[in-house]
Amino acid sequence: MGLEAKQFGLQGLPLVRSKYEPELPPSLKGGNVKVVKGDGTTASDPSDALAITRAYPHTYAQPLVQLVAADAGQVKKHSSLRIGVVFCGRQSPGGHNIITGLFDALKKHNSESTLIGFTGGSEGLFAQKFVELTSEVLADFRNQGGFDLLGRTKDQISSLQQVNDAKAACRALKLDGLVLVGGCGTNTDAAQLAETFAASGCDTKVIGVPVTIDGDLKNQFVETDVGFDTTCKVYSQLISNICTDALSAEKYYYFIRLMGRQASHISLECALQSHSNMVILGEEVATSKMTLFDVTKQICDAIQARGEQGKYHGVILLPEGLIENIPEFYALLQEINSLLKQDVNVENISSHLSPWAAALFDFLPNFIKKQLLLDRESDGSVQLSQIETEKLLAQLVETEMTRRSKAGIYTGKKFNAICHFFGYQARGSLPSNFDCNYAYVLGQTAYYLTEAGLNGYLATVSNLKHPVDKWHCGGAPITAMMTVKRWLRGPGVSQIGKPAVHRAKVDLKGKPYEMLTQNANTWLMEDLYRNPGPIQFDGPGSDLITLTLLVEEHDYIGKIQELCEYLDKVKQIVKPGCSLEVLNAALSSMASVTDILSIMSTPAYRGLTPF
Amino acid sequence: MGLEAKQFGLQGLPLVRSKYEPELPPSLKGGNVKVVKGDGTTASDPSDALAITRAYPHTYAQPLVQLVAADAGQVKKHSSLRIGVVFCGRQSPGGHNIITGLFDALKKHNSESTLIGFTGGSEGLFAQKFVELTSEVLADFRNQGGFDLLGRTKDQISSLQQVNDAKAACRALKLDGLVLVGGCGTNTDAAQLAETFAASGCDTKVIGVPVTIDGDLKNQFVETDVGFDTTCKVYSQLISNICTDALSAEKYYYFIRLMGRQASHISLECALQSHSNMVILGEEVATSKMTLFDVTKQICDAIQARGEQGKYHGVILLPEGLIENIPEFYALLQEINSLLKQDVNVENISSHLSPWAAALFDFLPNFIKKQLLLDRESDGSVQLSQIETEKLLAQLVETEMTRRSKAGIYTGKKFNAICHFFGYQARGSLPSNFDCNYAYVLGQTAYYLTEAGLNGYLATVSNLKHPVDKWHCGGAPITAMMTVKRWLRGPGVSQIGKPAVHRAKVDLKGKPYEMLTQNANTWLMEDLYRNPGPIQFDGPGSDLITLTLLVEEHDYIGKIQELCEYLDKVKQIVKPGCSLEVLNAALSSMASVTDILSIMSTPAYRGLTPF
Repeated sequence: MGLEAKQFGLQGLPLVRSKYEPELPPSLKGGNVKVVKGDGTTASDPSDALAITRAYPHTYAQPLVQLVAADAGQVKKHSSLRIGVVFCGRQSPGGHNIITGLFDALKKHNSESTLIGFTGGSEGLFAQKFVELTSEVLADFRNQGGFDLLGRTKDQISSLQQVNDAKAACRALKLDGLVLVGGCGTNTDAAQLAETFAASGCDTKVIGVPVTIDGDLKNQFVETDVGFDTTCKVYSQLISNICTDALSAEKYYYFIRLMGRQASHISLECALQSHSNMVILGEEVATSKMTLFDVTKQICDAIQARGEQGKYHGVILLPEGLIENIPEFYALLQEINSLLKQDVNVENISSHLSPWAAALFDFLPNFIKKQLLLDRESDGSVQLSQIETEKLLAQLVETEMTRRSKAGIYTGKKFNAICHFFGYQARGSLPSNFDCNYAYVLGQTAYYLTEAGLNGYLATVSNLKHPVDKWHCGGAPITAMMTVKRWLRGPGVSQIGKPAVHRAKVDLKGKPYEMLTQNANTWLMEDLYRNPGPIQFDGPGSDLITLTLLVEEHDYIGKIQELCEYLDKVKQIVKPGCSLEVLNAALSSMASVTDILSIMSTPAYRGLTPF
Repeated sequence: MGLEAKQFGLQGLPLVRSKYEPELPPSLKGGNVKVVKGDGTTASDPSDALAITRAYPHTYAQPLVQLVAADAGQVKKHSSLRIGVVFCGRQSPGGHNIITGLFDALKKHNSESTLIGFTGGSEGLFAQKFVELTSEVLADFRNQGGFDLLGRTKDQISSLQQVNDAKAACRALKLDGLVLVGGCGTNTDAAQLAETFAASGCDTKVIGVPVTIDGDLKNQFVETDVGFDTTCKVYSQLISNICTDALSAEKYYYFIRLMGRQASHISLECALQSHSNMVILGEEVATSKMTLFDVTKQICDAIQARGEQGKYHGVILLPEGLIENIPEFYALLQEINSLLKQDVNVENISSHLSPWAAALFDFLPNFIKKQLLLDRESDGSVQLSQIETEKLLAQLVETEMTRRSKAGIYTGKKFNAICHFFGYQARGSLPSNFDCNYAYVLGQTAYYLTEAGLNGYLATVSNLKHPVDKWHCGGAPITAMMTVKRWLRGPGVSQIGKPAVHRAKVDLKGKPYEMLTQNANTWLMEDLYRNPGPIQFDGPGSDLITLTLLVEEHDYIGKIQELCEYLDKVKQIVKPGCSLEVLNAALSSMASVTDILSIMSTPAYRGLTPF
C-alpha cells in the first residue's frame, strides 16, 4: 500500500503528470449526464444463451446503455452514495485513473458521497480492509502508473466463501456500488457478484472496468483495455532499441519473449510498431497445429535465408503464451497441472506422465523442466510467465543450426542468441495520454452507471480510435460478453461449460494480423526497423494510439444504430395506404433477410467458424 | 550497415528527432573558431610519467587546448580536408551525432572536404571498407540511436598488424585526420595510433571522442561520456516501473543486473534516480573485500529487516561488474581466463584449478559454471555480461532465507525473486537532448582539433552541468589521461605496466556516492521510489541531466585558470622595487607551498591512496 509511500510528494515528470487533466468526451463534459437505456442484449453465440440465462437469471438480457449529455445547466445534486473500489486484476498502467475519474464524478454531484478503496486487492475486500479516498491522497496518484495506491493480491474471486465475504463487506460498509478493476477474470467475477447480490437481496450494484495490459478483454462492446496502449509502447521502445543494437553490432539474434498471457495481442502490436524481423503468434501456431520442431524449423529457415544475404543478426518476438499453443506442449502442461492438483510429488512427476508427454519432458533442457515443475500460479497451475520459452527456442535453434552447419546445409557464420523477457518493466509505467484519458473517462462512466442503479455492467467507451471529443460512453451487461467453451481440449480451457468472459485471441482474419502478414517477408529480410521511441507526454507523437486500435474496425454500436434506422425507414415507407406492390416487395425482401439471418445464427452454422 | 536500411525514410518520433537542431556553445556558434594552446600537460600520477614518456615520446606532454570564438565575420574557408571516422567502441546512444557534428563543421569551412565512414567498425578500417558520407545519407541518422549508420565489430586495435593496416588505410585514402569513437580502450588505441603515425611519418592526425554508455571514461578533462545520460535514463525508467510494480503486488524481490562493465557508475546513477531499495556497487565490495557470502548476508539481512516491517517486496540493483569485484570470484575468473588462454579443454578446467578456486567452482550452480566456461569475449576472457549474477545471488539468498526460516530466525512470508538483466535494450535508444547536444558539440570540436593539426588528442567539453551556452570546448592529449597499473592482482588489471586510459571506478569519496550513502537506509526501508519516467524530448524534463553529473564537482580547467591568476598576482605584487618584507613573506610562503606540493606529488605518498 502506497498511501504513505509518497509522503514527500512527487518530483519531476511524475509531478508534471499529476497535473495533467484528462480530456472528457462531450457526454461527460457538461454538468449533467443522462443514462439512456437501449435494447435488451443477447449472447453473441445464440447456443450459449441458455447456459448463460441459467447461470445469470437476474442479470442476463439487460439493456445496453448510453451516456448522453443532459441539460447544460447547474450540476444536479445526486443523493449521497457510498462506492467501493478494488484492484482485482494484475497491475496495469492507468488503473489509478479509474479511481480518480470515479472519485471526481462522485464528488462533483455530492461532496458527501464516499469513495472507499479496499487495500491489498481482493483479499482486502474479503477482510474489509479499506481506506476512505480523499482528494489529498489521490493528488499524488493522478496519471501515475501501477496499482500502488491500494495494492493487489489474488486474481480471482472463486470460492463461495470469498463471494460471501465480499457480500458481507458490501453490506457492512453499506455500499451502493462496488467497482472491480481488472481483465476477463475480474469481470467474470463482477458478473458473478452482481448476480449473487441480486439473487440474495444485497443492494450493492457491481460494475466492472476493463483494465489489463494483455489487450485480450475485447469484444463487440470493448475496443481495447486500459494499459494495453502504454505497455505496448514501452515494449516497442525496448524492442526497437534492440533492433538498432542488432543492426549496429550485426552479430546477435535477439529472442524476446513478451508478457501478455495466452493471447498474442501485445506481440502483434509490438511487431507492427517495431518491424522486428519475426514474430510467432500463439494463435498461428495453434491454428496450424505447429509442433515445437515446426517452430524451430521456421526460425532456422529464416536465419538461413538471412545468412545467405550476409545477415547474421535479427530480432524475433515470442509471446509468453506461445508455449501452451504448441499442441504437444499443451498436452504436457495439462498432464503436469492435473498431476500437481493430485499432489503428486514434483520428483515423481516424470514417471506419472503418459509415454508421449514423458518423451517430450525428457527431451527438454533441465532449466525448462525445473520451470515447469517449480513455479506455480495461485490456482496451482504452471506459471507460464516463468517458462523461458525464448531460451528453449534459442537452444533448439542453435542445435539445429549446428547440425545444418555440419551437414553443409548452412554455410554462414555461427549463430549467436541473446534472450530477453519483457514483462514487469512496463506494468508500472507512467500511463500514456491515451490510457490516462481512457481510464479517467471509464472511471467517470462507472460512477454514472452505479448512480443509475445498474448491476452487472461493464463501463465502456467506444469510438476510441478517434479524438476524445468523438468518444461515446456507455455500459454493457457483462453477461452479453460471455461465451461457453465446449471443447475438451485446446489452449486456455479451464472452465469447460461455465459461462465466462473469455480472453479474446488475436483474430487471424482481422486487420492488424493482415497488416503483419502483408509485411512479414519484407520485415524478415530487409531490416526496415522502426523506432517509435519512448512515450512522449508533450509535443509530437504524444497522442498516438496503438496500430491495433487504429486499423481495427470498431463501430458495433454505430452499426446497430444504423440498422435500427433501416428498420424504421422500412416502416415509414410501408405505412398503411402504401401500394400493394410496395408491400409485397417489402414482405418478400424481409422474408429473405430473416431467413438468411436465422440460418447464420444457428449454432450449427457458427460451429463451422474456426476458433 | 544501415545505409540502405532506412531507404523508406523515417516516421513518427524518429523523424521529428531527425529535425532536432543540437544547441551549440558560444565558441562554436559564430562562423570561426580559434584553437588556443595552453600549458603542456603531465600525467596525473608523477610516478607514471616516465613510463608514459617512454611509450609515447612524440605525443606526451603536449599542451591542453581550448576552442574560442574568433572574429564573428564571414566563415573562413579552410583548405579541403579528408577525415575518416570509425565506430570502435560498443554502440552508445549519441554516436551518430559525433559524425553529424564533424560533418557539419567540415563542410561549413569547405564544401570540397570529404568525410569517410569506415563500415563495420575497426575491421572496416583494417580492410579499407568505407563510404563517403553525404548530407543525404546522414539526414536519416541525425539524433538517432545506435551505430547502425556504419556498424561496428571488434573493440580493440591490438596487434601490430592491425596498427599497420590502419596506417595503410589512412595513407591509401590520404586522410588528414582519423576520428575514433569509443571508450577507454578505443582512446588508448587512438593514442597508440597517433604515436605510431607520428613516429613513422604518417601525416594523419588521430583524434578520439569519449563515447560509451558505461560512464567510466572520466578524468580531470572528461566529465562524462556520450551515451551515459540516455542509457541511465532508459534503465531508470524501467527500474522505476519495476519499483511501482513491486509496490503494487507486494510479493516479489526484483534482482536487476545492469550493464556497465567493471565500474558501477550506471548502477549508482540508476539508484539515485529510482531510489531502489538497494544497490551493491562493485567498488564497495572490492574496497571492503566482501565475499560472496558477505554479499548474500547483506541482502538477506535487508530482506529480514523489511520482513519485520511486513514488507515482502523490493528492488535490488546489481552492476554487471559486481562479480569480478568479489575477491574469491575474481581469483577464480583469473584462473579460468589463464587456463582458457592455455587452451585447456573446457571439460577439464575444474581439475586444473587451484584447490580454493575449485572449491568455489564446485559450489556454484550449473548455469553459472556453464556461463563461466562457454561465453568468451573477443580477447578470450570470460564474458561478464553473460554471467547471470542476479540469478546466482537470488538463489543464494533463497537458500539462506529458507535456512533462517527453518531455524526460526526469519518468520516472515516466503522469499520470491524475479531476475532481470537490463543491457541491450538501452544502447540503441534515441539519444536524450543532452546526449544529442554533447555528441554534436564533440563532433564539431573533433573537426577543429584535426584542422589545427593536433595529434593524439581527445575532444573535450567541460562545464556540462550548466546549460549549453556555458559549455567550453577543447582538447586534451590522451597521454595526460593515462595511468600505469602496477598491482599484480586486483579487478580490471589486464595490461600490467602498460600505460593506458583506465576505466574510472566509482569514487567512494565523491558526491554521487555520498548522496547514496546518506539515503541508503531510508530508501532500503521506506519505499520512497521515484519514477523519472521515459525520456522526454519536448516540454518539462526534456533537458534534465544525470544526477551524477549534477552533483559532481567538475571545474578542473577553471581551477587551473584560477591558480594561474594567483601566480600572476604574486608576480604583480612582488615586482622589483617591492619592500624586502613583502619579498621575504612571498619567499617563505612559496617555499612552504612548493614543499607541501612536492611531498604530495611523490609516488610514495600517492601510493597510500586506496584504489
